[in-house]
Amino acid sequence: MATCSETNSDTEDQDKEYVGFATLPNQVHRKSVKKGFDFTLMVAGESGLGKSTLVNSLFLTDLYKDRKLLNAEERIMQTVEITKHTVDIEEKGVKLKLTIVDTPGFGDAVNNHECWKPVADYIDQQFEQYFRDESGLNRKNIQDNRVHCCLYFISPFGHGLRPLDVEFMKALHEKVNIVPVLAKADTLTPTEVKRKKIKIREEIEQYGIKIYQFPDCDSDEDEDFKKQDYELKESIPFAVIGSNTVVEAKGKRVRGRLYPWGIVEVENSAHCDFVKLRNMLVRSHMQDLKDVTRECHYENYRAHCIQSMTRMVVKERNRKYDLSRNLLFMFLLYNILVFGVQIII
Amino acid sequence: MATCSETNSDTEDQDKEYVGFATLPNQVHRKSVKKGFDFTLMVAGESGLGKSTLVNSLFLTDLYKDRKLLNAEERIMQTVEITKHTVDIEEKGVKLKLTIVDTPGFGDAVNNHECWKPVADYIDQQFEQYFRDESGLNRKNIQDNRVHCCLYFISPFGHGLRPLDVEFMKALHEKVNIVPVLAKADTLTPTEVKRKKIKIREEIEQYGIKIYQFPDCDSDEDEDFKKQDYELKESIPFAVIGSNTVVEAKGKRVRGRLYPWGIVEVENSAHCDFVKLRNMLVRSHMQDLKDVTRECHYENYRAHCIQSMTRMVVKERNRKYDLSRNLLFMFLLYNILVFGVQIII
Repeated sequence: MATCSETNSDTEDQDKEYVGFATLPNQVHRKSVKKGFDFTLMVAGESGLGKSTLVNSLFLTDLYKDRKLLNAEERIMQTVEITKHTVDIEEKGVKLKLTIVDTPGFGDAVNNHECWKPVADYIDQQFEQYFRDESGLNRKNIQDNRVHCCLYFISPFGHGLRPLDVEFMKALHEKVNIVPVLAKADTLTPTEVKRKKIKIREEIEQYGIKIYQFPDCDSDEDEDFKKQDYELKESIPFAVIGSNTVVEAKGKRVRGRLYPWGIVEVENSAHCDFVKLRNMLVRSHMQDLKDVTRECHYENYRAHCIQSMTRMVVKERNRKYDLSRNLLFMFLLYNILVFGVQIII
Repeated sequence: MATCSETNSDTEDQDKEYVGFATLPNQVHRKSVKKGFDFTLMVAGESGLGKSTLVNSLFLTDLYKDRKLLNAEERIMQTVEITKHTVDIEEKGVKLKLTIVDTPGFGDAVNNHECWKPVADYIDQQFEQYFRDESGLNRKNIQDNRVHCCLYFISPFGHGLRPLDVEFMKALHEKVNIVPVLAKADTLTPTEVKRKKIKIREEIEQYGIKIYQFPDCDSDEDEDFKKQDYELKESIPFAVIGSNTVVEAKGKRVRGRLYPWGIVEVENSAHCDFVKLRNMLVRSHMQDLKDVTRECHYENYRAHCIQSMTRMVVKERNRKYDLSRNLLFMFLLYNILVFGVQIII
């Protein structure tokens, strides 16, 4: 040992050193891959707008192998039913449990009065189940069936939104992230698409419909990202064309639709917004859709539930019922809501 | 357009394509960085074992600027108090809100009967607060003060564990992740360190103390990782030496302790396990410590709470008190526990 000098560590020295908690995001990343992901997507809109085809195109799976199509007669009196398809898909080691919630029959009847109700009820039921589960004793392995996003299909033939579209979106916009899409856009010229989008955006504004809002860009994002973000916001409603058919265009095999006058390429951004929609839904905003569902829609549902319980008790009290009846009522309500009926007095 | 052939997309084609949900872990990564992290570390063990120095060494901050040391007389009758220091630190753009919970006075009195109690109470209080907050109406901005890890300092002078060590760890092992460290290891030769570690590990086993268990390696991890993991498990209790002083050793400036017979280098793995402890605590297992706290210790506390509530009601009922009294009791209990006293009947 030649020379040893002892000094107090100064701030400059400390700044140079590295503790290592910068690895925290990587620890989270690693854990999330191990655990796997889930996502629940709802599709809604009248029959024949290509909902199933679009979903299959988006996730490159065949989710509707066993689908039975109803004829016109069967559909006249049909009530809206909710169906659920789940697939486990994997990509680059990342596992996703994808659930598609479909609403066959929506808007198909002659009288579509309140036909959004079964859909709203379904969403509420998932929230209720989750509220029960997360208030229960054992919270391991809770199955989370909350709906993270609803793709709402708007007909390309309507002059803007139809009354049913407005009614549906207004009934559901506080329960789920609504992403409107302009279906079967290959029936519209680029000018028509542009005009229709502007009209629909104006109507959404006018009717006070709160569709899913893309989170604002941070000021520190680069210009490219900001431009992409702006373009995304201007694309609403996404004009989409679905196809599960591969055709050959200019020597390349692409998914598309073969017409006598040309080939519509699904993934060509000059033809439609399919790629933009997929990028948003899957590659950039999927986690945000889940977070907004959890932090906003579910929290609203939960707060509403607790407040109703409280209100009911207060109301009962004001009626000057005897104390024990009030308490019994409140307590049973709480047990039914939260624990199921585990505790029986 | 030359030739167009229309074919059904086959499975092979689909596999080649890329949906994009493989970006989900990156979306989570990005969001976690934006949100920032927090971590609460408790240090426990008798005075003079270098707890504060080690914490400062670990996180390269001065957390104890205002500390007032008590003299022997003041310490005789001293009760254990709990102090909390919080610092916001940042590294490579990752923000960490670090809270250190200290237990000055622990084991310092002449009679240390149940001196672990204030520590256990503190941990329970944080759980209770969190239980209340997460059961409440507004769950935005919940402050999470749950203790994620407790570094328990074992004296290098004991022959293995002392009775107080056993008592402390057994009282707390179901509430918090205990990581035992062998303090001031520069008073022990390598052979002594090895022997003492084996002895302490045997005693931990013998007394049924459940210290923090490193999660098992996945079978798909590489050999290097598995070796590191094995070494980590063999290092318990980590033999540590702390120092906030920079000394010059062989021309390099290192944190260490300057003795007439040589320099103890804190970050030299031939001298002590400081680097191993820091790697475990900060770089590899910090997120797991948080997850185990949340999924295991907190869930146990919560289940215990709900079960006590239920038991109390059943007990009251068995005493054949009248119904309204039972319900009043249960309902008030629930309100006190969960909502504070927001609803008053």
